[in-house]
Amino acid sequence: MKKISLTGIKPTGILHVGNYFGAIKPALELAKEYDSRYFIADYHALNTMKDPKELSALIRQVAAGWLAAGLDPEEVIFYRQSSIPETFELATQLMAFTSKGLMNRAHAYKAFVADNTEKGEDPDAGVNMGLFTYPVLMAADIILFNSDVVPVGKDQVQHIEMAQDIAQAVNANYKQQVLKIPQAAVQESVAVIPGLDGRKMSKSYGNTIPLFAPEKELRKLIMRIVTNSQAVEEPKDPEVSQIYLLYKLFATADEQASLAKRYREGGMGWGEAKEELFRVVNRELSPIRERFEAILADPTGLDAILVRGAEKARPIAAATVMRFRKAAGIDW
Amino acid sequence: MKKISLTGIKPTGILHVGNYFGAIKPALELAKEYDSRYFIADYHALNTMKDPKELSALIRQVAAGWLAAGLDPEEVIFYRQSSIPETFELATQLMAFTSKGLMNRAHAYKAFVADNTEKGEDPDAGVNMGLFTYPVLMAADIILFNSDVVPVGKDQVQHIEMAQDIAQAVNANYKQQVLKIPQAAVQESVAVIPGLDGRKMSKSYGNTIPLFAPEKELRKLIMRIVTNSQAVEEPKDPEVSQIYLLYKLFATADEQASLAKRYREGGMGWGEAKEELFRVVNRELSPIRERFEAILADPTGLDAILVRGAEKARPIAAATVMRFRKAAGIDW
Repeated sequence: MKKISLTGIKPTGILHVGNYFGAIKPALELAKEYDSRYFIADYHALNTMKDPKELSALIRQVAAGWLAAGLDPEEVIFYRQSSIPETFELATQLMAFTSKGLMNRAHAYKAFVADNTEKGEDPDAGVNMGLFTYPVLMAADIILFNSDVVPVGKDQVQHIEMAQDIAQAVNANYKQQVLKIPQAAVQESVAVIPGLDGRKMSKSYGNTIPLFAPEKELRKLIMRIVTNSQAVEEPKDPEVSQIYLLYKLFATADEQASLAKRYREGGMGWGEAKEELFRVVNRELSPIRERFEAILADPTGLDAILVRGAEKARPIAAATVMRFRKAAGIDW
Repeated sequence: MKKISLTGIKPTGILHVGNYFGAIKPALELAKEYDSRYFIADYHALNTMKDPKELSALIRQVAAGWLAAGLDPEEVIFYRQSSIPETFELATQLMAFTSKGLMNRAHAYKAFVADNTEKGEDPDAGVNMGLFTYPVLMAADIILFNSDVVPVGKDQVQHIEMAQDIAQAVNANYKQQVLKIPQAAVQESVAVIPGLDGRKMSKSYGNTIPLFAPEKELRKLIMRIVTNSQAVEEPKDPEVSQIYLLYKLFATADEQASLAKRYREGGMGWGEAKEELFRVVNRELSPIRERFEAILADPTGLDAILVRGAEKARPIAAATVMRFRKAAGIDW
């Protein structure tokens, strides 16, 4: 039997090429090796997103984005967190076994407090209980589905350790294996995806290529990449050119070798390099964009996919909650 | 239409006469004026009770106790908190609107911290997240059922104020009346029920009369009441005698006047007074004890009563959660 992997997807922004190569593609690779589950963490998003129109639109856009990028809802389980009410009961159960000290030590919370303290504000200013209890809800997300493995970046390892601590406290108290202990699969070297300006692609730098930008916008974004003043005839170093760094993400090995050669030979202007970059980017993103648009054009169909996912997920979730209830003496 | 009242019942100990007169009887009176709901707060109990056998037994004993004491499950709604999964989803929703500072100021939490600090321990030693987030879960209990009124002692008023704060934050954010704002009905003068030793009846003083003690045990407890050395013939002051103070709870006005007269006339020994106390206590408690035993002897019937209560409660709960989901943009 395959081991179970779980990936949480926070619907907090429009997907870009950095998400696609840095998060979505590696996560979809998991389905080859694992019995993989993916969920849209909509109640986690509620902690920071209080505009209903924005939240509702982002949930659908992010779900459509993952489907367009290749998530196969027949092969894996794909659902919304809010469709699994067992999540919230398990979170309540876990609260009783989570020491407050553990939460005080959460990196994200501590960063908030440090920031407030530096500004001379109350340490807890702007911290809501959703943010403070986030690790418990995340532990519930993970433990509910008997996850063996949660793929995370290094900065997320603490959350998995907390889920382990909490599940172990439950098992120790009831002297039985009530909950499965999850393991972190740390992605040691998540590739840094370069942005339009050569720095890491990030919403906060404003240097992203939106994953579903229409062809015209995509072309404009690439044509606007700022380059140096080297003349057309000069030989150029591909490895210091953000055009080439982006090109490597989308081009075949042959294409990469061929463009690198043209860089080094001289005689190619930046405009030409950008056209070549646009060609390969658009080649990869066009079918994804078309699928994305088709999915979003049929919200009923999209919702039905997520409902079917929840139908597959709920019996697993209900079994975990009932295991806890039986152990705790609240089982009838 | 009647206003709605809600009473939470924590299954954390065997019921005694102090609970009966101080909490159960006043709470059952509410059903005359209000559309009353009562629930066994089993997940609140989990925060402190980690022994499944004890918890499971107490849930049934406390439920049977309230039914035996006169709770009419046809007239009111009577359910277990753990049977209403909507509670935990609403709690998760409310977390996003509860500032952590509000929880830091909760009296019960602050008392814990003060106690730890005095002992030189970590301020949060022994505090689990269930205890820390208790006011949010309690707010969910209350708000879920559109409660107008929550009868509380003075020490519980802060919890209702917190529920108000949280519900108001939700309504203000979504610019609509998503959640009903509950009001505290403060019981200004909760009668102090005297214990066997004349002090307030309390489990922690070990001076209680268990509500369902078998007749023999009841008799023994009353006969063991410590009295002073006044001789039989001496006139006695009824108002300083714990026997008489207890008697007043159970006797009719005529009986009270008659026993007070015998106290003042002299000629009555303590043994006689105790016999008379036993007679009226047993008169009131016998039918309750018999109902209690009959209910507990049929756990299937008891569970069915609570299940029917949950069936009445869940549509109300589901409607509240859906109102929130619609407002928040997570409504499909």
